Amino acid sequence: MKRIAILTSGGDAPGMNAAVRAVTRKAIYEGMEVYGINYGYAGLVAGDIRKLDVSDVGDIIQRGGTVLYSARYPEFATEEGQLKGIEQLKKFGIEGLVVIGGDGSYHGALALTKHGYPTVGIPGTIDNDIPGTDYTIGFDTASNTVLEAVDKLRDTATSHVRTFIIEVMGRDAGDIALWAGVAAGADYIVIPEREFDIKEIAAKISKSRERGKRHCLIMVAEGVMSGQEFKDLLSQEGDFHERVSVLGHVVRGGAPSVRDRVLASKFGWKAVELLKEGKGGLCVGIRNEEIIASDIIDTLENQKHHPDLTLYTMNNEITF
Amino acid sequence: MKRIAILTSGGDAPGMNAAVRAVTRKAIYEGMEVYGINYGYAGLVAGDIRKLDVSDVGDIIQRGGTVLYSARYPEFATEEGQLKGIEQLKKFGIEGLVVIGGDGSYHGALALTKHGYPTVGIPGTIDNDIPGTDYTIGFDTASNTVLEAVDKLRDTATSHVRTFIIEVMGRDAGDIALWAGVAAGADYIVIPEREFDIKEIAAKISKSRERGKRHCLIMVAEGVMSGQEFKDLLSQEGDFHERVSVLGHVVRGGAPSVRDRVLASKFGWKAVELLKEGKGGLCVGIRNEEIIASDIIDTLENQKHHPDLTLYTMNNEITF
Amino acid sequence: MKRIAILTSGGDAPGMNAAVRAVTRKAIYEGMEVYGINYGYAGLVAGDIRKLDVSDVGDIIQRGGTVLYSARYPEFATEEGQLKGIEQLKKFGIEGLVVIGGDGSYHGALALTKHGYPTVGIPGTIDNDIPGTDYTIGFDTASNTVLEAVDKLRDTATSHVRTFIIEVMGRDAGDIALWAGVAAGADYIVIPEREFDIKEIAAKISKSRERGKRHCLIMVAEGVMSGQEFKDLLSQEGDFHERVSVLGHVVRGGAPSVRDRVLASKFGWKAVELLKEGKGGLCVGIRNEEIIASDIIDTLENQKHHPDLTLYTMNNEITF
Amino acid sequence: MKRIAILTSGGDAPGMNAAVRAVTRKAIYEGMEVYGINYGYAGLVAGDIRKLDVSDVGDIIQRGGTVLYSARYPEFATEEGQLKGIEQLKKFGIEGLVVIGGDGSYHGALALTKHGYPTVGIPGTIDNDIPGTDYTIGFDTASNTVLEAVDKLRDTATSHVRTFIIEVMGRDAGDIALWAGVAAGADYIVIPEREFDIKEIAAKISKSRERGKRHCLIMVAEGVMSGQEFKDLLSQEGDFHERVSVLGHVVRGGAPSVRDRVLASKFGWKAVELLKEGKGGLCVGIRNEEIIASDIIDTLENQKHHPDLTLYTMNNEITF
Repeated sequence: MKRIAILTSGGDAPGMNAAVRAVTRKAIYEGMEVYGINYGYAGLVAGDIRKLDVSDVGDIIQRGGTVLYSARYPEFATEEGQLKGIEQLKKFGIEGLVVIGGDGSYHGALALTKHGYPTVGIPGTIDNDIPGTDYTIGFDTASNTVLEAVDKLRDTATSHVRTFIIEVMGRDAGDIALWAGVAAGADYIVIPEREFDIKEIAAKISKSRERGKRHCLIMVAEGVMSGQEFKDLLSQEGDFHERVSVLGHVVRGGAPSVRDRVLASKFGWKAVELLKEGKGGLCVGIRNEEIIASDIIDTLENQKHHPDLTLYTMNNEITF
Repeated sequence: MKRIAILTSGGDAPGMNAAVRAVTRKAIYEGMEVYGINYGYAGLVAGDIRKLDVSDVGDIIQRGGTVLYSARYPEFATEEGQLKGIEQLKKFGIEGLVVIGGDGSYHGALALTKHGYPTVGIPGTIDNDIPGTDYTIGFDTASNTVLEAVDKLRDTATSHVRTFIIEVMGRDAGDIALWAGVAAGADYIVIPEREFDIKEIAAKISKSRERGKRHCLIMVAEGVMSGQEFKDLLSQEGDFHERVSVLGHVVRGGAPSVRDRVLASKFGWKAVELLKEGKGGLCVGIRNEEIIASDIIDTLENQKHHPDLTLYTMNNEITF
Repeated sequence: MKRIAILTSGGDAPGMNAAVRAVTRKAIYEGMEVYGINYGYAGLVAGDIRKLDVSDVGDIIQRGGTVLYSARYPEFATEEGQLKGIEQLKKFGIEGLVVIGGDGSYHGALALTKHGYPTVGIPGTIDNDIPGTDYTIGFDTASNTVLEAVDKLRDTATSHVRTFIIEVMGRDAGDIALWAGVAAGADYIVIPEREFDIKEIAAKISKSRERGKRHCLIMVAEGVMSGQEFKDLLSQEGDFHERVSVLGHVVRGGAPSVRDRVLASKFGWKAVELLKEGKGGLCVGIRNEEIIASDIIDTLENQKHHPDLTLYTMNNEITF
Repeated sequence: MKRIAILTSGGDAPGMNAAVRAVTRKAIYEGMEVYGINYGYAGLVAGDIRKLDVSDVGDIIQRGGTVLYSARYPEFATEEGQLKGIEQLKKFGIEGLVVIGGDGSYHGALALTKHGYPTVGIPGTIDNDIPGTDYTIGFDTASNTVLEAVDKLRDTATSHVRTFIIEVMGRDAGDIALWAGVAAGADYIVIPEREFDIKEIAAKISKSRERGKRHCLIMVAEGVMSGQEFKDLLSQEGDFHERVSVLGHVVRGGAPSVRDRVLASKFGWKAVELLKEGKGGLCVGIRNEEIIASDIIDTLENQKHHPDLTLYTMNNEITF
């Protein structure tokens, strides 16, 4: 291929810009032309497309958000929208597309693939809930942002002998709650992948209090219930001086971590190598430390993301 | 005086530990003994009091929260509670008391003063709403924590063309909203000290959007209304793609900033100098860059904190 | 005036962009035109000048460095260079100039003033060594960056029982060493404004060690000597397990703090108000919390910056 | 086993405390007793040993450094030292030992193993240069600390059109330089594992400058040469406005990242499981996302750490 395009779609994630940069630089280095599509699939259908030069991706590797902007665009679920998108790509002479995003974005890539248009997906979402990869771009940064916040809550919790219920992002996946929870030394982590027993949690807090522990931190993934709902449940079991903290959109932004920038760079590099060889219908990922490419249809239709549940056991099992 | 005590009370604020350290070190250096009272006025009444040595305040200057713990203790509003507290102090041979905290804590210090017990107040609260000082300990750190969060929200707001309504702490005072708002380049700052006109705000956002601005940030001090309530108001004026972010308890914690540690050190130093000379019934503060001591009765009964409203004008007036 | 220009000069300082933004927005709001001069006085003489619009200063308030770039340009010390600069300004129809920078930049502004060209200086340097103001733009951020580094060194110092000698920026002024030193709980602060006695310092460290203190932190302003030179001196007095850490250019960068952004915004606002009224030959500053304008000739020729030496006493005097 | 001990040795690394905490909690949960040895092998030989309770490891997961302190102790290379250490362990009735540290610490563990004492090594060093594991505790945090510093240098480099030569830790291993370099978008990364050609690097910088790039960042691992030496070499090839920045001990400290805390927790957990089953002579690691235990003799005598050299290629190869 000699001309490819790139778009970012869905919720923004730190490291998306590093991926945009890697795709652009690698492709130009390989003698290809690169076009940037603004506002995801909405911009694709509307033809909001511009040529990218090396200098367009200069000084962006460290920036949160996405310089290509993003938008939710449910209309792309229709065949009409998809065909319009392919028409736009052909109008610009674009032979292959890189899509960076989460679940919804991947389904757009899947649709383009089914229409025969060469597309490569790069997993970019803070939620880490994409099949075909151990990690998504943005997950490491978001987990660290959550951790920094919880380290601050710990100061207050310790000073006032309080229980903080910390609601974190994660509609279907408990990854952020699990990783940030273990890292924060949370007393309990509540995730969508596992049932919880409120009496067991209350008993664990009571036991901690008895041995003199001053703060108690409970991570709740929003996919289970809201922090407030969890507080209401817990307070029926006793008075634990509960406070709720909701870590919302703040977690999406910020300069990406080393891991997210390195992962994004490798994914971008790989995506271009695939398209250069004329390969589409794929999504890239990292599996056991190796950068891989999987069939996007098989990945989305037959695979599922599984969080590391040893973290759940390690963290929740220990009771003194 | 040869033996003094120190307590922290009310909501914790970053820099309280730096003040505890300064009081302890300065007093010991001056040949005095220092006692720490745990859990504020609750611990005072309960006699939860221990001698502090230099090593007890080692390695705490950088820590958020308070190593003396804090608690709300409404019972100290009663004369009975106050007299019990003074009794405890006398039992330990303590001749003077340093109280670090906000509005409620100062009223405890006021009561002790009225009972003739030598007390010095140090303003420690993130809200900056204490009369007798331009700045309180914790305000600078909390404002910077808010700013870091807003800088992250800006990434997402820009990527998705959104309006973020950011609710920040500040029941009666708009200081955090004002300082962090100006620093973040907020489109509008809503504070308890000033009425606002929702139509004017909506018009300002519309105008920004017309000239191509992608993100819009509105700071709302919780004393005016909740972020959600503000969103409901604003959405009646048009569709601004609003999202609400509530920066709650996270803002209280974290390592204190240079300013807060320096201010806390100076306040602690001054408080000990006053007690050493046998002076009580005072609160320390900074006024026009000078460390001062004011009569605590006069300060609490006749003075009021005023935020810097030039920030309000500078920020909200400019419309393009 | 209807058309003004702005340049940044000398070492970059966090908050310069906030000042550029404030000048640009306020001037446009007041109906004036604003031109940006790239690369300081070098760009002025070369005519590297472009019109600034509101969108040119969008999304820069949070960025370190300067979007107008900076350069050292010794040729501006000559009358020839100065007259060429004024010629360029007149060619563009520019009636007044705002100069943001440190000592050298101010001397350029002084020269323009002496040639009768209306100029207003804004103090922007991390060193805080400018007369006519209590604080310069960048000082607060740089001090906090130093403090964060020292907080990290403390971890290692404590773990290994070491003495860290920390060399910080400050050729002629000890402000960063003083503020960051007090905030870090340094054992000793060495600044150009005061002589030091190496035996006294060695004795203080020995005494700390005897009472079981594990880490020792000594701040040395580079204007006194290098960290390595200080280490060589100290090691002649005993074995204190010394390590040297040089905090160099890292301290110049990063997102500006709340204080620096607010200060920069106020300074920019004030500078435009002065030029709008046709006033030049001034430098803005903050004195006892008030934004002021001083005669630039008088300020540079008769005044001197004095650091807050109470910090020196507070920190270095106490010995146990 | 019913009683085990733990020590940290060598240079401190962020996450060591998380490992100490995990070992202690898991062991106590499993019904074992845990002893902490202060100051590494020095404390082992001296018998500086104390029982650890759950509360001794409370509130340390977020702290840099090591609460067990560390020390270099070359005497442990002698058989006499080793036997004295084993004697102390036996005196306390300790049946197994966990050693957290880097290369030198592992050789101590190897010696104990050869004497038949059950020992398990946990890789803890920022350098990531330990065989038997893909990652060591502290590497992720240190890389992020380097990255934050480089992001700040970029501000100044861009403002002044400069080349920054950034010397980072890494005596024998280029891991930090590679990961932080790719993440920072460095123009070139110089590591001990690969020869470099100064003319090629100079040509790359020149080419970047020609296409208008304002900043240039070169990462140099200290194992190759000092930043100053590299600058001297480079300046013979042209004037690139070079500045040197040495990121020294600062990189060792700070709150550990999510990854380092999670890794440390898993390693600690695994080490206790091994000792519980009576297994010694092992070192734990992570290999392709799986927590493993390897024979420590085989690992140290026959294996070698290899950095991810695809990062080297990806970063250094691309030239425009």
